[in-house]
Amino acid sequence: MVHTPLDELQQALPECVSRAPDDLARYSRDTGPQLQTVLPSAVIHARTVEDVQAVMQWATRHRVPVVSRGAGSGLSGGAHATEGCVILSLELMNTILGINPDDETAVVEPGVINADLNTAAAQHGLMYAPDPASYRWSTIGGNVATNAGGLRCAKYGVTRDSVLALKVVLADGTLISTGHSTFKGVAGYDLTALMTGSEGTLGIVVQVTVRLRYLPQDVHTLAAFFDDFPRAAAGVLAIGRARVQPSILELLDGRTLEALDGVHGSDLRQRGGSLLLVRTDGYGAAAEAEAIRTVLVGLGADVTREGSDEADRLVDLRRHSRGDDVDDLFRVGEDVAVPKSRLVDYVEALEAMAERHSVHLKIVAHAGDGNLHPTFWVARSEGRRAQDRLNEALDESVRLALDFGGTITGEHGVGQYKLRWLAWEQSPAVLELQVRIKEVFDPLGILNPGKAIVA
Amino acid sequence: MVHTPLDELQQALPECVSRAPDDLARYSRDTGPQLQTVLPSAVIHARTVEDVQAVMQWATRHRVPVVSRGAGSGLSGGAHATEGCVILSLELMNTILGINPDDETAVVEPGVINADLNTAAAQHGLMYAPDPASYRWSTIGGNVATNAGGLRCAKYGVTRDSVLALKVVLADGTLISTGHSTFKGVAGYDLTALMTGSEGTLGIVVQVTVRLRYLPQDVHTLAAFFDDFPRAAAGVLAIGRARVQPSILELLDGRTLEALDGVHGSDLRQRGGSLLLVRTDGYGAAAEAEAIRTVLVGLGADVTREGSDEADRLVDLRRHSRGDDVDDLFRVGEDVAVPKSRLVDYVEALEAMAERHSVHLKIVAHAGDGNLHPTFWVARSEGRRAQDRLNEALDESVRLALDFGGTITGEHGVGQYKLRWLAWEQSPAVLELQVRIKEVFDPLGILNPGKAIVA
Repeated sequence: MVHTPLDELQQALPECVSRAPDDLARYSRDTGPQLQTVLPSAVIHARTVEDVQAVMQWATRHRVPVVSRGAGSGLSGGAHATEGCVILSLELMNTILGINPDDETAVVEPGVINADLNTAAAQHGLMYAPDPASYRWSTIGGNVATNAGGLRCAKYGVTRDSVLALKVVLADGTLISTGHSTFKGVAGYDLTALMTGSEGTLGIVVQVTVRLRYLPQDVHTLAAFFDDFPRAAAGVLAIGRARVQPSILELLDGRTLEALDGVHGSDLRQRGGSLLLVRTDGYGAAAEAEAIRTVLVGLGADVTREGSDEADRLVDLRRHSRGDDVDDLFRVGEDVAVPKSRLVDYVEALEAMAERHSVHLKIVAHAGDGNLHPTFWVARSEGRRAQDRLNEALDESVRLALDFGGTITGEHGVGQYKLRWLAWEQSPAVLELQVRIKEVFDPLGILNPGKAIVA
Repeated sequence: MVHTPLDELQQALPECVSRAPDDLARYSRDTGPQLQTVLPSAVIHARTVEDVQAVMQWATRHRVPVVSRGAGSGLSGGAHATEGCVILSLELMNTILGINPDDETAVVEPGVINADLNTAAAQHGLMYAPDPASYRWSTIGGNVATNAGGLRCAKYGVTRDSVLALKVVLADGTLISTGHSTFKGVAGYDLTALMTGSEGTLGIVVQVTVRLRYLPQDVHTLAAFFDDFPRAAAGVLAIGRARVQPSILELLDGRTLEALDGVHGSDLRQRGGSLLLVRTDGYGAAAEAEAIRTVLVGLGADVTREGSDEADRLVDLRRHSRGDDVDDLFRVGEDVAVPKSRLVDYVEALEAMAERHSVHLKIVAHAGDGNLHPTFWVARSEGRRAQDRLNEALDESVRLALDFGGTITGEHGVGQYKLRWLAWEQSPAVLELQVRIKEVFDPLGILNPGKAIVA
């Protein structure tokens, strides 16, 4: 006899539903800061599109909130459990359904790991370009949900720029296809882009067709040490003014170098007050690297020798200099973006502000995109009062980014944690449009409620 | 005394409103085939955002359909007048509001001509990448409305990939901002992408912030003559398999060569049965061109000599080999796309089909994107019966593209003319979602009704 809605679901999908306390805890959150701890009432491991459809039909019938997730590597709490929800994990839907080497596309289930897709694509001389720091464990579905960025976006664009088509299960269980298997296509509204970055609030992505890019036949990497951050940021602008397009352009401040030295026993901070990492790729990689070297040396940088593999090692270090850590209420990694020309001014304002609030600050930036990840932290031992200072600093850092013509989130998404800032960026009319669009897709409000948009 | 709604508008915006019969006729259509002739009741030449807001407030008050347009160069009838409408021309809003050379962005009014933006950007070593055939007269606003493509999309993407932010006047006159001035940004839903390609059915774009790309410091162009189309299409795949990314990759069939010979007195058709035009750009351009030459010569192509400027002349010829002509009910240029690997099969099926229907056919393709522009025509002297044959051939060509995994429109948009095919590509659930999204933006249905989506 069926007693509760969850019993009904468990009976329908006995192999998918877990109510084990360990699972509930483990799947209750992603990697973003948690404002409160909420446990889901169940974790559902979907294995097929039909499973997802069955879950959404059930959720619609019983008005149960559904929080979908991939690896849970998100940094904004977009996959945190909310009151009364079930977690719908897509991890087990991890089959690469096809790679089409001549079409330069791949069709994947949402649970495919970003790095696994790249490994498979590489066998055909292809790559999936978006490479968030979490690429070794984050899923393509999660990347789509947050419109994830990464290091190579400087040249190759963000997730949205690589997504051609989606299959999506709507709130009521209906399966739709959006987009096209071709590089170009303009039939109807761009629902693919609308879904990308919507953080599971408009539907559940169950299949993704992506465009692959050519694996570069040559790659050159430079590491340029500068005396201080303003000079390194001037290097970013100078590379731009030389009109050379790096595939990766990462900027690390002195405190980040100190932190890396602390972890890895390196001597980076001794060698400079700021580090610029530059990678070029493709047929022009060598000439581009040489042009960039000339520009940076002219600005007084100490640039690694051609042929040295130190710069490559530093890029790997940079990739993992943040993503491994879980933020909490004492340490928060931010994710704003400003127009490139404002990088120096913004960081200067940020440093003054952090000092005023007695908050620690270190900064890395996807400088080619003007996308900054300042990390603010306070001593855990200081307790609640320090948290307040941290929050004031965070608020002010976001306000400053907006004052400089920027955005509250460059690539991590709004999730739950950044909701408090969204109305600073978007007008009431835009907030209202988003609510009404969500109502079109999710009239009962069961798809990841309280995330991504201000209700 | 105000008598009619139009009188009221004319009184409010005396310098903007024209009811002169010449204007009504001239602005009644774009460059797409016309299913019926409808005259607007007025043409409104907006000069400011406030003008556009006043028009939409008026239109909302009186429930008057508004068809917005730029240069009217669209090929799908998206700007054709419909019953009872006024035409809102944005041509006079043609100021480049700013170019930010360090941010690599430009902010423009919608009436700015694509080529004019490129001329201005070139002074800073920058370019606006999307280059539809109409680039010398089409407007950025129109390009955004149709998500226009072009030749350089093969490397640089379509309009959507270059649009960062929009200002949009909604149906009720409310002005909103979407997107961000930075390269990256994921706050809220991607309304910028939703607006791009929506053909004036969701709002009136009154300001566009675009990303500019670097003017390539080197450009190489090859022209490769092949015996026949299948061999040239094999060349397209071979370039892809060599994992070399051209900026332009255009494929012309023998009948297109004959047509160009007829107009220009050239001898292209004598030199081959099909022509592949390849351009590479950037620091690697020379090496890329050389790699491509090797591949194509290996396939038996007759490739222009390095340093010859004939290939450049042919690219210019190709740019203007179609766009100048206005289609009608006896000659229609199509715009489908198929996965690249299906180019040969699709064209073979197309030729058999055209022969079966006794319809003339010539084909050019943005081959790098799988985007084909077959032109079908029948003798005008044959009259109505030939039109029926033409329509059957068109229907079948579109059906075939879908059968091959393609789309009904690669870059021209659905407009009015392609509406009859949209339901072949999109499911009832998707069609319904689009209608409901339109209702969110345009509850009275006054924004370009009967275009872009199936109501």
